[in-house]
Amino acid sequence: MRRYEQLVTHLSGLIRDGTLRVGDRAPSVRQASRDHGVSPGTLIHAYELLQARGFLEARSRSGFYVSDAWVATDDHPRASRPTRRVTQLDVSQLVFEVLEAMRARDVVPLGSAFPGLDLFPMRQLARDLAFAARRLDQWNTVEDLPPGNESLRRQIAQRYRLSGAEVSADEIVITSGALEGLNLALQVVTQPNDIVLIESPAFYGCLQAIESLGRRALEVPTHPRSGIEVDELEKLIDRHDVRACWLMTTLQNPLGATMSDSSRQRLVRLLSSRDIALIEDNVYAELYFGKTRSRSAKVYDRKGLVLDCGSFSKSLAPGYRVGWVAAGRFATSLWRRKIMSSLATMIPAQAAIARYLNRGAYERHLRNLRRELARRQRLFIAALERHLPPDTRWTQPDGGYLLWVELPPRVDAIELHRAALDRGISIAPGPIFSAHHEFRHALRLNYGHLMTPRIDAALETLGMLIRSRMHAR
Amino acid sequence: MRRYEQLVTHLSGLIRDGTLRVGDRAPSVRQASRDHGVSPGTLIHAYELLQARGFLEARSRSGFYVSDAWVATDDHPRASRPTRRVTQLDVSQLVFEVLEAMRARDVVPLGSAFPGLDLFPMRQLARDLAFAARRLDQWNTVEDLPPGNESLRRQIAQRYRLSGAEVSADEIVITSGALEGLNLALQVVTQPNDIVLIESPAFYGCLQAIESLGRRALEVPTHPRSGIEVDELEKLIDRHDVRACWLMTTLQNPLGATMSDSSRQRLVRLLSSRDIALIEDNVYAELYFGKTRSRSAKVYDRKGLVLDCGSFSKSLAPGYRVGWVAAGRFATSLWRRKIMSSLATMIPAQAAIARYLNRGAYERHLRNLRRELARRQRLFIAALERHLPPDTRWTQPDGGYLLWVELPPRVDAIELHRAALDRGISIAPGPIFSAHHEFRHALRLNYGHLMTPRIDAALETLGMLIRSRMHAR
Repeated sequence: MRRYEQLVTHLSGLIRDGTLRVGDRAPSVRQASRDHGVSPGTLIHAYELLQARGFLEARSRSGFYVSDAWVATDDHPRASRPTRRVTQLDVSQLVFEVLEAMRARDVVPLGSAFPGLDLFPMRQLARDLAFAARRLDQWNTVEDLPPGNESLRRQIAQRYRLSGAEVSADEIVITSGALEGLNLALQVVTQPNDIVLIESPAFYGCLQAIESLGRRALEVPTHPRSGIEVDELEKLIDRHDVRACWLMTTLQNPLGATMSDSSRQRLVRLLSSRDIALIEDNVYAELYFGKTRSRSAKVYDRKGLVLDCGSFSKSLAPGYRVGWVAAGRFATSLWRRKIMSSLATMIPAQAAIARYLNRGAYERHLRNLRRELARRQRLFIAALERHLPPDTRWTQPDGGYLLWVELPPRVDAIELHRAALDRGISIAPGPIFSAHHEFRHALRLNYGHLMTPRIDAALETLGMLIRSRMHAR
Repeated sequence: MRRYEQLVTHLSGLIRDGTLRVGDRAPSVRQASRDHGVSPGTLIHAYELLQARGFLEARSRSGFYVSDAWVATDDHPRASRPTRRVTQLDVSQLVFEVLEAMRARDVVPLGSAFPGLDLFPMRQLARDLAFAARRLDQWNTVEDLPPGNESLRRQIAQRYRLSGAEVSADEIVITSGALEGLNLALQVVTQPNDIVLIESPAFYGCLQAIESLGRRALEVPTHPRSGIEVDELEKLIDRHDVRACWLMTTLQNPLGATMSDSSRQRLVRLLSSRDIALIEDNVYAELYFGKTRSRSAKVYDRKGLVLDCGSFSKSLAPGYRVGWVAAGRFATSLWRRKIMSSLATMIPAQAAIARYLNRGAYERHLRNLRRELARRQRLFIAALERHLPPDTRWTQPDGGYLLWVELPPRVDAIELHRAALDRGISIAPGPIFSAHHEFRHALRLNYGHLMTPRIDAALETLGMLIRSRMHAR
């Protein structure tokens, strides 16, 4: 980093954290260049950049003053959401604080949403990717525009059919990860201000999408094992003009809950009778520990109202950003919307995954993956039993790599998150999963990393931090 | 394609094109299975799928009837745009018609927006991609989340600095192609219903983004050589509450116009004095034929109000979907918005391009690319001179691979597009570049493919089609 850039970073930091206050006069160029040991030219350069970025403003003949114009940058539509109760932090702000905490290389990633990369066939995928990139030509750069690579779409459709859902390749749209698919689905089935029904707690990406796209969220009570309560949902759709649901009926994030097939069927029939679209975030579908996969909501869909959003990021190829939507009657709208918002998903990545699947090794990989995740869950829960105080509870999901911990009532999850972070441990505090900052005494933990002494020690530290808060006054 | 899928495609086609009309009774299962030579089971399967997709509805005890429920799928927000004049076709509909026409493998892609892949170092990139994918690990899957790969961001910032713009790596956000960056930029600097100033004609992706995000467009007169008229722009911002401009001041698509540095400076100063953000679509910036690159609007930006959107898709790596925004004061908002809408850009693709740039071969590649594009332009224009009628005019841009043709007044570009397509030639008709379907006597042609006898013959055919329309009554 060049000297003037260091200065900019340093000074903007002082302004951000309030050490230099809005309206304060900044030190004179002569004074400041002496203080920082730089030439006046370098200092002026830094001041000009700070001015350009809204941290300083120049007043003619009287020098530079601290400005808050930069604050606009951090402004979020979220702030104006009418149903929001007053709480200390903005959900987005807190989500970003938590996400950024996980970026430091030395943090123990218990709060992460990503599993360990050692679980995936990264070398084989790299070979498939190289092969696909070498074969990239005039034709497939156009051919693989949305709805996307045909071989990949056929194989995804085939997997649905094997699990009992009549899905054709025509309704599959390849997306840049599930999150893009979910966002596109929401844009296609709802308009601004429409009411979208979500779980409580919900995946924070769902909360963010609904708010950033100007839709309104309505939360349904959700059981930590059996998922949303269909009776409650029915009452809500009787009372409100709900246009869509965004749900995870299998291995829900953050709870780990999975609805029974019969509840899911009842749910789909109910929504179908009211012509309400169901956006299903189904990214953990392949990670079940039991004998069989839960049935996709698609199985019960007779009207094309279910948009099932999947991804290879959790099951095969983290970092490749290849997902899909089985979009039912909305397929054409969805892929057109995709062309308008990001044109295409990286062409060789689509072809590489198609090639991997085509080889027929995916099922064996999935079996190994499930077995290993189940093993990691056992080891992790054994460590929780050793280290966490007795009145802490957790879910034991039938798959995936996330579980939900309920803390003793005196322990505040956000405060715990910050204390843990000070000790190099990330956790995902409950309030990031709620539109109203609820679940202040809960957190989500990731057991998808190899169980090492370092993770064991992190859980021991976490237990100690929780205990000290239970007894503090 | 399986038999029932063929049936679904066939029957939905008959419904789409009106051969089977809404409310008509579909042939009985027995009759239809006999007609199509399939088993009753297969036929029922096809009917059920057609029902699921809204093409048929079942009425109890009386069989299947043709339904129009599928129409909802093709509905676009565009249709309700209030400022739209009545014209035969919806802009989006026409854009998609043109884009889809280019997908057939045997079409001569004169209407395409993609250059020939032979111009790019695809094998070297494939090696870099394989290298990056092999090195993908726990750390860089998190580290390269937005704002994105740091080495890549530094090198992009460095290129700005070499061209005279003070841009730091901190304000660079990596995106999945320029189009994602442009859409994010628009979401960050404007709210629904805000007025956005655009060129006329404009890149159709700009029109689509503005409409799909519910903003309103205001068109500025644009000169085919010198770009937008700043005086006209000033009058418009005096009269309207303009919140942002979305412009291409260098090698504008579709015209090929480039503003002079002094006009660009005047433009930036003017917008800056009103605090209007400038979203600059700068994807052709590297493809100049003259001695030096046009100065980026960033050079004149003192307030961080310019969001310069670039891409490697046109200059280095088509199909990789790696672009960026130099987002000024909006950088934090922009990368957070990106996390909310698509999480990340494919991790190995970012690293692969960083690695390619780092090797120092990019400048040499660009020199060759520019020289070859200039040569293709000369050959293409020579062919236009041979084949098109004398009262046809075209621009001769100082770079890129697109030019704009003005047809004799009696020739309708949309009709010409369809006639050309019947002969296996795609062109981009003028109305897809206008919010009001103007430019009905113009078209955009792509000269970025290797000049072959096939392309020469296509231009000869095009000339013949134009002539026959000039003299038709």
